[in-house]
Amino acid sequence: MIIDTEKMKVYDISMPVKNDMPVYGGKEGKRPRILKEPEFSKGHVYESRIEMNLHTGTHVDSPLHMIPGEAPMEKYKPEQFITGCYLIDLTDVIEKITADDLKGRRIRKGDFLLLKTQNSFKDILEGAFIYLDKTGAAYLNEIGIAGVGIDALGIERAQPEHETHIQLFGKGVVILEGLRLRDVEEGEYLLCAAPVLIPGTEAAPARAFLIR
Amino acid sequence: MIIDTEKMKVYDISMPVKNDMPVYGGKEGKRPRILKEPEFSKGHVYESRIEMNLHTGTHVDSPLHMIPGEAPMEKYKPEQFITGCYLIDLTDVIEKITADDLKGRRIRKGDFLLLKTQNSFKDILEGAFIYLDKTGAAYLNEIGIAGVGIDALGIERAQPEHETHIQLFGKGVVILEGLRLRDVEEGEYLLCAAPVLIPGTEAAPARAFLIR
Repeated sequence: MIIDTEKMKVYDISMPVKNDMPVYGGKEGKRPRILKEPEFSKGHVYESRIEMNLHTGTHVDSPLHMIPGEAPMEKYKPEQFITGCYLIDLTDVIEKITADDLKGRRIRKGDFLLLKTQNSFKDILEGAFIYLDKTGAAYLNEIGIAGVGIDALGIERAQPEHETHIQLFGKGVVILEGLRLRDVEEGEYLLCAAPVLIPGTEAAPARAFLIR
Repeated sequence: MIIDTEKMKVYDISMPVKNDMPVYGGKEGKRPRILKEPEFSKGHVYESRIEMNLHTGTHVDSPLHMIPGEAPMEKYKPEQFITGCYLIDLTDVIEKITADDLKGRRIRKGDFLLLKTQNSFKDILEGAFIYLDKTGAAYLNEIGIAGVGIDALGIERAQPEHETHIQLFGKGVVILEGLRLRDVEEGEYLLCAAPVLIPGTEAAPARAFLIR
């Protein structure tokens, strides 16, 4: 993909991080806290701090999230976060994305795929959000994708063995969660999804842009 | 600038965020804390949380940092973070970057400039780091730059009225701090410096890449 920075259009597909944002499972303990630094009142500058779970809002997961001893975030290469990608419109899917929902769609070996669902439109992020089920993950692994992003706070739910995460991690697939895809249509983009560099951890918050 | 994603090389110019990293002024209260979520021991997944000042490591400042009532982070446009940039080698500069150090260098209206100094080589980030002084900031404002990045945790120190920040903010210049520039040479790049989207705040941690 060739990008001319003079002519590009940039879409922000990140979720705003704030105290009352949606969090996984709606658990209060997972809501981020943004606080003024106590020094502020004494000084001339305004400073804040944040306390947050690393899976808050738009973020990338690494295999350590699900598989003990597996790769932490710093094992990803920068090139895995700045890459051509293809956004698939799956807004007609109900409950979960299965292999059947993906068959016949434009999905190619080596793609970074973004899955746009009703999660970008409905207020379901803390509950019964649409997810990629284990048959969908297996299908994507058959093709051999490089990464997958979704507009849910997790790429799966309701699968106690976490088969979607575990299958994808087994093939080195980057998992990008918490996207906001309402304003972007199916098609090819340059993805820039840059997670904060926090070595040794299993996830990191990211700002994600699509460029066309 | 035209980027071909098949042929690009990506440099990570971000500072790793960890408990014992350098922080502004070496203040213990500013060190980030990375903690395992207590739920970890009970569940099947590994999760962490972080507590950090928003000016930790590689980060972007907005005018609210220094000027009450001025723009918080969300006022920046995505295009300000994905932009051509020019890195200037100032590794011969001692103590501070003045207007005299910048005169005669390749600096053009509308540039996003990155200032590479001895900060990328010496262990001085918590103390007497090299900074952009108020005469240097005034000179850059005369030319009219779009952004400036530096390999220090602050773009200035030892100026009680914060004239460098305040002058640059007055002209809408993006300020990017905490870069690691040891491995990149003077020249043109595409900069992708994506701060986490935390509305209402005066700064945000970012992952920064240079692409050539």
